[in-house]
Amino acid sequence: MTIEKVLCLSGGVGGAKLLLGLQRVLPRGSLAAVVNTGDDFDHLGLRICPDVDTALYTLSGLANPQLGWGRRDETWHFMETLEVLGGDVWFRLGDADLALHVARTQRLKQGQTLTEITAELAERLAIPSAVLPMSDDPVATMVVTPDGELPFQDYFVRLHCEPVLRACRFAGADRAKPSAAVTAALRQPLRAILIAPSNPWLSIAPILAIPGMRELLRDNGAPVVAITPVMGGSAVKGPTAKIMAELNLAVTPATVAAFYQGVIDGFLLDVRDAASTNNLPVPHAVADTLMTTDEDKERVALSALAFADELRRP
Amino acid sequence: MTIEKVLCLSGGVGGAKLLLGLQRVLPRGSLAAVVNTGDDFDHLGLRICPDVDTALYTLSGLANPQLGWGRRDETWHFMETLEVLGGDVWFRLGDADLALHVARTQRLKQGQTLTEITAELAERLAIPSAVLPMSDDPVATMVVTPDGELPFQDYFVRLHCEPVLRACRFAGADRAKPSAAVTAALRQPLRAILIAPSNPWLSIAPILAIPGMRELLRDNGAPVVAITPVMGGSAVKGPTAKIMAELNLAVTPATVAAFYQGVIDGFLLDVRDAASTNNLPVPHAVADTLMTTDEDKERVALSALAFADELRRP
Repeated sequence: MTIEKVLCLSGGVGGAKLLLGLQRVLPRGSLAAVVNTGDDFDHLGLRICPDVDTALYTLSGLANPQLGWGRRDETWHFMETLEVLGGDVWFRLGDADLALHVARTQRLKQGQTLTEITAELAERLAIPSAVLPMSDDPVATMVVTPDGELPFQDYFVRLHCEPVLRACRFAGADRAKPSAAVTAALRQPLRAILIAPSNPWLSIAPILAIPGMRELLRDNGAPVVAITPVMGGSAVKGPTAKIMAELNLAVTPATVAAFYQGVIDGFLLDVRDAASTNNLPVPHAVADTLMTTDEDKERVALSALAFADELRRP
Repeated sequence: MTIEKVLCLSGGVGGAKLLLGLQRVLPRGSLAAVVNTGDDFDHLGLRICPDVDTALYTLSGLANPQLGWGRRDETWHFMETLEVLGGDVWFRLGDADLALHVARTQRLKQGQTLTEITAELAERLAIPSAVLPMSDDPVATMVVTPDGELPFQDYFVRLHCEPVLRACRFAGADRAKPSAAVTAALRQPLRAILIAPSNPWLSIAPILAIPGMRELLRDNGAPVVAITPVMGGSAVKGPTAKIMAELNLAVTPATVAAFYQGVIDGFLLDVRDAASTNNLPVPHAVADTLMTTDEDKERVALSALAFADELRRP
């Protein structure tokens, strides 16, 4: 019997592209996404989970392709009116998007876990994959800057990643546990464990910071493959390259692979870096990892899976 | 010096029509509306104040003339999406309307009073009148039915006023105080105190149930005039006539005037009831009280003010 299930650790937009590629090439129900919740925060009285939401919208085909966040065909009457009424509008919430946050916040107050709520929302959105928040315990990514700590969304959205990042702290991670669903997903036989091309320091590190997570990944026995978030000396999107420079790190695949050392068995790097395989601490493969179209996403998913299958062979 | 200030007790839609008429005929800043908060409730994690909102939307020209509640030019993407996600949709909230509830809920959580928040919202909406919630203390109108008590919005919106109403209870009213702003408004010299043609049992009774409110109304010394909510044996809108029948009350001006006995100095009845002045316990005047157009609202406002002025003359 072939083992078909694949698990993928993911942050927001970049990671969700790979998740969609995987969902499109794998048999229905074979994908479990373990999603960062360190970006989650309370805003306007609502619990907002940006990476989980991006996974939900991307995997249901509702994501906004222009913005890279939120829903397609969105309207903004809530936000426009909130501005008139003097409310906080630095974090944009579309009219339809808002329903997700209101529904989730209400169910959290009623005592449901984020995992239960996310599963129900995924079902309502007819998503054929499992979307698993990394933990049901609160973890808050804090960005350490020369002027003190900033909550993640203040840094990322309100201040457009402008402050210099000296380090990240994952508040609450030391007391958090992987959710029961994540633990169960990592205790089943898996074809591969992938680390999506999300920001390692901001989006994947919080997942790995949860006590027990690294052991679950290692003990599963499936090959663990990271897909590069950098190519040709820069990042495709977002602040990854800026952050690496601020951390005095070279923007190379080797830097990312070193960050994942002890977790990964292989590293998938981009064709633009095919010559930069010096110092890679693990086996590597090369592919065109730029994901623009859905066909690109399928191609990268297939490359990552083929590489993982290769690593499995004795 | 002429005393120009007018205070009007009001519930929702019917009362707001008179408020708008008064605002249109009075000098800017002369009107204070004391609004029922017994209908307020928590829904979807939001604090919703239907009568205060109706006053805000009506007095800012934003009210939806078709629906009789909410805003004009409204969109419903939030609600449509919430339904897809399995949320509660029996209480309709438009996309722009939602901003008001979110802004208010957030400020309440930050410790502002409903009075402060309402004043700020009224200013943002450029309303030239004072919109004063009757109290900053929670009062919840409960409808006593043969099958037990129902929270007001369950009765009014979810069940469309179908259950038989045996009585109303204003939970919390005995511990509530008139707000400081209401107390101050009632301690200043007033040209008139009006009771809008809202439902006496559902919308005005909660205001009068607050300890000290009747004394403030009486001690002001201004003539207190109620405008009839019934005409020709029925109510213009809403469940007033149904409720009066269930309370075994004749649907006549005299019944309403008797309900307000001890509070009012005069009763403005409708031309359709000009012959039904038997048993009126207070002086009366007659006017066409049907308010459809803005001109109607101005006309009724002027009739009520003229009658109050007459009552003031020794």
